[in-house]
Amino acid sequence: MPGNFRAGTFLTGRGTALLEALGRHLLLELRDCDAVKLDDLLFLRHTMLHVAKETGATIIGEIFHQFAPQGVTGVVAIAESHLCIHTWPEFGYAAVDIFTCGAAFETTEAARLIVAAVESKDSEITEVVRGQLHVPTPASGA
Amino acid sequence: MPGNFRAGTFLTGRGTALLEALGRHLLLELRDCDAVKLDDLLFLRHTMLHVAKETGATIIGEIFHQFAPQGVTGVVAIAESHLCIHTWPEFGYAAVDIFTCGAAFETTEAARLIVAAVESKDSEITEVVRGQLHVPTPASGA
Repeated sequence: MPGNFRAGTFLTGRGTALLEALGRHLLLELRDCDAVKLDDLLFLRHTMLHVAKETGATIIGEIFHQFAPQGVTGVVAIAESHLCIHTWPEFGYAAVDIFTCGAAFETTEAARLIVAAVESKDSEITEVVRGQLHVPTPASGA
Repeated sequence: MPGNFRAGTFLTGRGTALLEALGRHLLLELRDCDAVKLDDLLFLRHTMLHVAKETGATIIGEIFHQFAPQGVTGVVAIAESHLCIHTWPEFGYAAVDIFTCGAAFETTEAARLIVAAVESKDSEITEVVRGQLHVPTPASGA
């Protein structure tokens, strides 16, 4: 059943797992965007679902909501974690999150596609490593 | 209609808005949690919805998904943005996001409740300011 199995985690090591990180989380600050697109729920829904599919994600659910007088919130839950967008057309601003586990999902490409779709002319992307666990490194030569 | 109006943004100023930030985003790294609770979709769903209601959020949608052989993803879209949880019971780890706009929502209390619910003994919370826009400060005396 698609989406029933979580995407693979970043594991390396020999025998015992030496854990690097479970996930990557990109925080996108998208300023100076096209205000009309930021208020267009259908456009944003199409964009986010298209990006998820194009970059290898498995969609398990979605919520999109239009605010009055303006603004859209969109959340796409994926087997690899989630994609979110919150827009403030009045400021030409969108906050986007791309949280993924599993190397198969192309986070950087997903970010590029979203930045292009909303035509942000002032974008800032921060990567946060999630799930760095304190797993002991196997003894050398073990 | 509840949820149809976006929660207020952090605005100060005189006449022209002097914008501080549109949102606050707490990233919770929750290690050494109760593994049974991290794999209990009904418990996590109840917890996240309860936290949203208790701390003043307006729920506009939710997605919860159980992975095989273990792990849960939960996303709650709120008028104030979103709450997300992704769990790895096999590592006793959960990644939680609390993204809010509007001062009414008690983010710190929401974080405290979630940490307590999953019984994390090693939690780390990072706050990221979202939507810091380059809005000119009105001239002094304007």
